[in-house]
Amino acid sequence: MTKVVIIGGVASGSKAAFKLKRLKPNFDITIYTKEHNVSYSACGMPYYIGGIIKDIEKLIIRKVDDFKKSGIDVKNLHEVLKIIPEQKRLLIRDLKTGSEFFDNYDKLIIATGAGPFMPDIKGIDLGNIFTLRNLNDGRKIKKKLLHSERALIIGGNYIGVELAESFIRHNVTTTIVEQNSHLMKFFDDDMGNLIQNTIKNISQDYLNILNSDTVVELKKTENNDIEVITKNGFRTVVDFVVIAAGVRPCVRLAVEAGVELGESGAIKVDNKMKTNIEDIWAIGDCAEKLHLISKKNIFAPLSSIANKEGRICALNIAGKEAKTFNGIIGSSVVKYFDFSMSKSGLADFEAKKLGFEPVSVIITNLDKSKYMPEAKEITIKLTADKNTHKLLGVQCIGFGDADKRVNILATALLKEFTVEELVNIDLTYSPPVSISIDPILIATYKLIEKLEN
Amino acid sequence: MTKVVIIGGVASGSKAAFKLKRLKPNFDITIYTKEHNVSYSACGMPYYIGGIIKDIEKLIIRKVDDFKKSGIDVKNLHEVLKIIPEQKRLLIRDLKTGSEFFDNYDKLIIATGAGPFMPDIKGIDLGNIFTLRNLNDGRKIKKKLLHSERALIIGGNYIGVELAESFIRHNVTTTIVEQNSHLMKFFDDDMGNLIQNTIKNISQDYLNILNSDTVVELKKTENNDIEVITKNGFRTVVDFVVIAAGVRPCVRLAVEAGVELGESGAIKVDNKMKTNIEDIWAIGDCAEKLHLISKKNIFAPLSSIANKEGRICALNIAGKEAKTFNGIIGSSVVKYFDFSMSKSGLADFEAKKLGFEPVSVIITNLDKSKYMPEAKEITIKLTADKNTHKLLGVQCIGFGDADKRVNILATALLKEFTVEELVNIDLTYSPPVSISIDPILIATYKLIEKLEN
Repeated sequence: MTKVVIIGGVASGSKAAFKLKRLKPNFDITIYTKEHNVSYSACGMPYYIGGIIKDIEKLIIRKVDDFKKSGIDVKNLHEVLKIIPEQKRLLIRDLKTGSEFFDNYDKLIIATGAGPFMPDIKGIDLGNIFTLRNLNDGRKIKKKLLHSERALIIGGNYIGVELAESFIRHNVTTTIVEQNSHLMKFFDDDMGNLIQNTIKNISQDYLNILNSDTVVELKKTENNDIEVITKNGFRTVVDFVVIAAGVRPCVRLAVEAGVELGESGAIKVDNKMKTNIEDIWAIGDCAEKLHLISKKNIFAPLSSIANKEGRICALNIAGKEAKTFNGIIGSSVVKYFDFSMSKSGLADFEAKKLGFEPVSVIITNLDKSKYMPEAKEITIKLTADKNTHKLLGVQCIGFGDADKRVNILATALLKEFTVEELVNIDLTYSPPVSISIDPILIATYKLIEKLEN
Repeated sequence: MTKVVIIGGVASGSKAAFKLKRLKPNFDITIYTKEHNVSYSACGMPYYIGGIIKDIEKLIIRKVDDFKKSGIDVKNLHEVLKIIPEQKRLLIRDLKTGSEFFDNYDKLIIATGAGPFMPDIKGIDLGNIFTLRNLNDGRKIKKKLLHSERALIIGGNYIGVELAESFIRHNVTTTIVEQNSHLMKFFDDDMGNLIQNTIKNISQDYLNILNSDTVVELKKTENNDIEVITKNGFRTVVDFVVIAAGVRPCVRLAVEAGVELGESGAIKVDNKMKTNIEDIWAIGDCAEKLHLISKKNIFAPLSSIANKEGRICALNIAGKEAKTFNGIIGSSVVKYFDFSMSKSGLADFEAKKLGFEPVSVIITNLDKSKYMPEAKEITIKLTADKNTHKLLGVQCIGFGDADKRVNILATALLKEFTVEELVNIDLTYSPPVSISIDPILIATYKLIEKLEN
């Protein structure tokens, strides 16, 4: 009987376990996780913190018992200390009892995920300084939030923006410190500035944004509050701090076992999710992904991708070796109240770095027929390569159905549409749903004109 | 100086006029239209009738004066009686004075649109029997609606369904008579039955649907109401009737001038929108379109397509002959209150008729993460060809973001994705916007399994 061990069970690990059990009911499958929970939606935590989801237990997709009922053994609160590939063994510590023991595997899947990046800040070890990784972190932040008036978030990108919303929903004055000159640094400056202005307008006095700045010191005050000091000399006092300065792949275990990392710092895998070591696979945030437009391997922690990788890994371990995970386009969306910011492919600044010659247009148009009361303005930046006329990326923001448009272009990017081919997309139209000449087409026509001149 | 005459000015005609004027400011451009208005949104009329749009004037996109200001001459209330291609002349009647005169052209664009199909029903000439083509029709229906309690709609497809909503918004009990066994006949029976049940549930007692039936006679009652008699023997009395039994291309003028029609009954054009007669072009609803999946030329009256054709025709007349309109995928959406029904490509029954071997799956899944309060169920039917595994079509219905998914697949259909390629689509994920494993992917995985077994 084949014994499969999975280290980590949040998104990709639990997906792989269930898929593999379905394909190979006789396989012996064990998940080891340091955490209490497996299979939960980390992405949902800002909505628990913000009060949109009342009960954090709702974020648990499958309980430990659900795994057991399906014949998958979950050892939670168990930390894998060491992988010994030459013996196909693992050294494990039971975190409840402290005892250590060995287990063996025929196939090992590393799904250790990613953890918060901790910037080098004096006083970062004080109390009331949080990161957001697992459900317990979510509980702690929420508990503190409910008795706070002032919060600081270090980092103004996806998680930072979602947390700011959740804090402001509780009328907590929030300061974001962001190194970049605007929030959402993965957007070009023109779009990023629009984003930041819109977010400020929505938030009124509840949000302060410090750009091009970093926190250098955190100090405890006499009242047990936290004084924040930034590089540019800004000082403020807050009740608590959340560090949302990005995440890094959790690869220590893998590296110590001789598993090779890629350029990105995440684990190098092939398109079947195999590492350099026979019978060791890596999936999810800890594994790097091929970006299909840049052709570079990158670190991209996203649960939608992690799920795909879990599925492909399971199919391959089950012997379906024709199944591959080809890579990603780089699609993302985040909402700040009703305002959505979405992106697929490359921003101009990213395309330039990679040697493309990006040509882009920005258009603002209604998302629905002008006469419909719910029509809202959306802004699209569409980018193509000067030489090939192939699409490189799209950035789309707005209050209406802005995010609807980005997946259309993500699909076009996957098949390397030129802008000339994009003209032929046949989009649905009805006044309460869309507009007769879609903003995507308006942007496309304008981009073609620009490329032709 | 080149003289361009356009017959008809609703969607494609006015688009062509403006685009051509921008490209060739020196061209002399004249639009003749029988109607009072040009450039209005016919698609918006159900929303005026339903009361969502208060002022019908809002449906006018550009007024006659806007055309004149741009240097385009609009002769409204002028009917073109005859096209004389050998003399490049037109015989025209001024509908206000009754006088007739000739005008000449260098390039002629036929944009005569489509008109309601009138079924063969006894008593169809009685008063209070309406069709919906232009703004005046919309005004008449609304006026009658406001003093009515009972309405009958002949035809239960796009327009019929939109009108039923608009009548029920005014608490008018509505009966739809539809020849097909379910509403929305362009959907497969399985999806169509779901659609009909959902529409019935939404409407409660306000909507009666008679399927597999037709109206055979309309009679005036003593109270000046209308008695309706159907083939199956159903009888009812209503205040007014709307005929929404489909539309037909308006091609009489073209045919009399020797312009060739296609198999579909609409005007045959090439991918530059040229007809068989030199210097005569046809665009919009009166021109047939190549369906890129069936490879058949079809009649498909849609303003989004009409706008594209107007643009391509103008570019070609201006000398940019590399610009082509390649065809359509067949994408459509309609809403009934908050319930949307969308489709792209072929339904199974259509695919079978064309000689494909359709294999399909139907899945129902949430459109957003389960724990988000706004998550709603959507149902997707995804179809591929058994032999090539290429996508053939999608039908998508639901209360949530069902219609969001169809355009993603319309884009995939345009580039002939196989289901195996569709697995690689990289869709955005964030809990308030979507779900970690998108319903499209769930349907795709299931369809691959079905195709492989």
